[in-house]
Amino acid sequence: MQSTPVRPIITLLSDFGTKDVYVASMKGVILSLNPQALLVDLSHEVPPQDIRAAALNLKAGAPYFPPGTIHLAVVDPGVGTSRRALAAHCRGQFWVGPDNGLFHLVFRRASPLSIVSLENPLYFRPQISPTFHGRDIFAPVVAHLSLGVDLSRFGPEITDPVALNWPEPRFGPETVQGEIVYIDRFGNLISNISYAELSAWQGDADVSLQVGPVALRGLARTYCDVTPGEFLALAGSHGFLEIACAMDNAAQRLNAGVGLPVQIRQG
Amino acid sequence: MQSTPVRPIITLLSDFGTKDVYVASMKGVILSLNPQALLVDLSHEVPPQDIRAAALNLKAGAPYFPPGTIHLAVVDPGVGTSRRALAAHCRGQFWVGPDNGLFHLVFRRASPLSIVSLENPLYFRPQISPTFHGRDIFAPVVAHLSLGVDLSRFGPEITDPVALNWPEPRFGPETVQGEIVYIDRFGNLISNISYAELSAWQGDADVSLQVGPVALRGLARTYCDVTPGEFLALAGSHGFLEIACAMDNAAQRLNAGVGLPVQIRQG
Amino acid sequence: MQSTPVRPIITLLSDFGTKDVYVASMKGVILSLNPQALLVDLSHEVPPQDIRAAALNLKAGAPYFPPGTIHLAVVDPGVGTSRRALAAHCRGQFWVGPDNGLFHLVFRRASPLSIVSLENPLYFRPQISPTFHGRDIFAPVVAHLSLGVDLSRFGPEITDPVALNWPEPRFGPETVQGEIVYIDRFGNLISNISYAELSAWQGDADVSLQVGPVALRGLARTYCDVTPGEFLALAGSHGFLEIACAMDNAAQRLNAGVGLPVQIRQG
Repeated sequence: MQSTPVRPIITLLSDFGTKDVYVASMKGVILSLNPQALLVDLSHEVPPQDIRAAALNLKAGAPYFPPGTIHLAVVDPGVGTSRRALAAHCRGQFWVGPDNGLFHLVFRRASPLSIVSLENPLYFRPQISPTFHGRDIFAPVVAHLSLGVDLSRFGPEITDPVALNWPEPRFGPETVQGEIVYIDRFGNLISNISYAELSAWQGDADVSLQVGPVALRGLARTYCDVTPGEFLALAGSHGFLEIACAMDNAAQRLNAGVGLPVQIRQG
Repeated sequence: MQSTPVRPIITLLSDFGTKDVYVASMKGVILSLNPQALLVDLSHEVPPQDIRAAALNLKAGAPYFPPGTIHLAVVDPGVGTSRRALAAHCRGQFWVGPDNGLFHLVFRRASPLSIVSLENPLYFRPQISPTFHGRDIFAPVVAHLSLGVDLSRFGPEITDPVALNWPEPRFGPETVQGEIVYIDRFGNLISNISYAELSAWQGDADVSLQVGPVALRGLARTYCDVTPGEFLALAGSHGFLEIACAMDNAAQRLNAGVGLPVQIRQG
Repeated sequence: MQSTPVRPIITLLSDFGTKDVYVASMKGVILSLNPQALLVDLSHEVPPQDIRAAALNLKAGAPYFPPGTIHLAVVDPGVGTSRRALAAHCRGQFWVGPDNGLFHLVFRRASPLSIVSLENPLYFRPQISPTFHGRDIFAPVVAHLSLGVDLSRFGPEITDPVALNWPEPRFGPETVQGEIVYIDRFGNLISNISYAELSAWQGDADVSLQVGPVALRGLARTYCDVTPGEFLALAGSHGFLEIACAMDNAAQRLNAGVGLPVQIRQG
């Protein structure tokens, strides 16, 4: 089912921040088992315990990595409880982390999809802290995956991964109703409306948008399509419709956050 | 005394932050001398000049790296003064940095322990800035260490490394007196009480804790053992007793910081 | 003109921050094309759209990397407009990014200097987002450079790169007039006065300085030359005259920022 890359890439995503040595501890465990692994940080600045933000960033960044890449994601508010842990093969890459919805945006609509529940302690560290499965379970599992251990060795297959609390946009004949689900470092407001789906829905029609107090006519192509300080809506780098403020921070300007409604109307 | 790893791992710990190119300058110097070095950041967000926080994180993270790993630590308020610089072999790994207590928690109770004072300019950069020994002395020294240069070549042996201003907990027959020494990214309060020593002292007895205004009965196993918003004490990932607030920031909730007393009582 | 390093080093500098997966997306693109590339972050905490800060950090950090290193810099407020993109060979290293002044401090006074305008889509990603050339143009270009593709293949040579809005200091017979151009993580105030040029101008003379409200006599050698809380001027790690406050944050103490005048007088 899987090949063993010569120099396997392992990405790491977490809400651990970079102040403490939590991330480095995981890296040490991985490199102790596979010194050939090439480690790349996706991000460790996910807001604490924000599974949705982690899922969005994982979905946005992973496709740029080569087939066979192993993605380790640890945003794990339920660590130490009975929540399952999983490893999966999906979209040509591997995914390892807690079974709490982190991989929902990757798994949905994907086929084939193989997921196992991590239950074989042979691939864990001998002592497992109930508060840090990232280091004691997930890190050694990704290291063994990178060494070519087959997915089936880690535990029994499962078919019911936990779903994410993700608001699906509603596409109607004349309107789309969505909401803001993430705010990036620049204060850009990322919506849950896939830009590809929006384009298909829009066709050649004109659109107008209402985002909180901001009314916009049409979609922009770049941040420079409007004068500085004006708002615009465009295809963001995450693949979703994004509301920005040219040369400014849209979230601060609107004092807006996750959950702000976005309505798009044809005409 | 030492072996030369094929692909030597060098970790970096500092208070340089990641805004400026101080860390990258050190990496450039290392890679210029040894392009095979594998560089891993432990952390660069140590609070400025906080030697104690650096020592704690170094002690917590280093054991997860393989034998032969070289740990470079630069929190160096005395740079350019007569403070010594050192390289050491201890606990199967190498340690390089200023002699100001940074390695105290690693060196104490360790045997064998070999420490040299860095005095051989052959292994420094030709020009040494009095404000940046990390780049001009420590980085080239770790690079040469990673190339297999023997510790004894860097300078004369020393046996009196500077001790850290570290509050040792007091274990009495019925109580343990400690204090908070570090606050992590989640606001968890890390104490100076080693969890292993606490467990040995506790045996099968029940315990109660007083941490500032918070009274706790017993130790928890995971962050989920209490309802959100409640405080708990448990074995943290640093190896020390830690006080947390479930799904919340304990330091903010208590408006508490380093120095807060922790008292544990049997019964 | 160029050699192909066995394990090419690529550094990355941007204002993308580390919260989102923008940086990781670029790394994924690079590693997909050249898995042998060794990626090193210069910094991703450049203040948003601050080309001058990026130029200064690039100039300060790059010289510590070996010949042949490829520096990718993306601070790109004009992304998606008609601003050119460039790749260059200068000072024995390669430079790739938008043509907006980012490389001004590297290019000025450098010889030989070869610059090309990036126009050959063969080396871009097939689909180019108008908002993220870092991922879709610059990342694949540096990957191809690291694989040994000759600079001339990427597009036509140019000789008029955009200049930076950089305040040149004025060296008079008795005074030097400069200003603060950057504030580092410690609150040190970095001026536009090259320390090497200042030393040549000063010779054996004594100097006095006026920096905003602070008057100083003479230059210090280390941060410890004065008592804690006192101001000092010294050669900073960036290669420019720097004003610091011993064991304190000079920028906060002075409530000062970029643009603060610095005057140096002989005697």
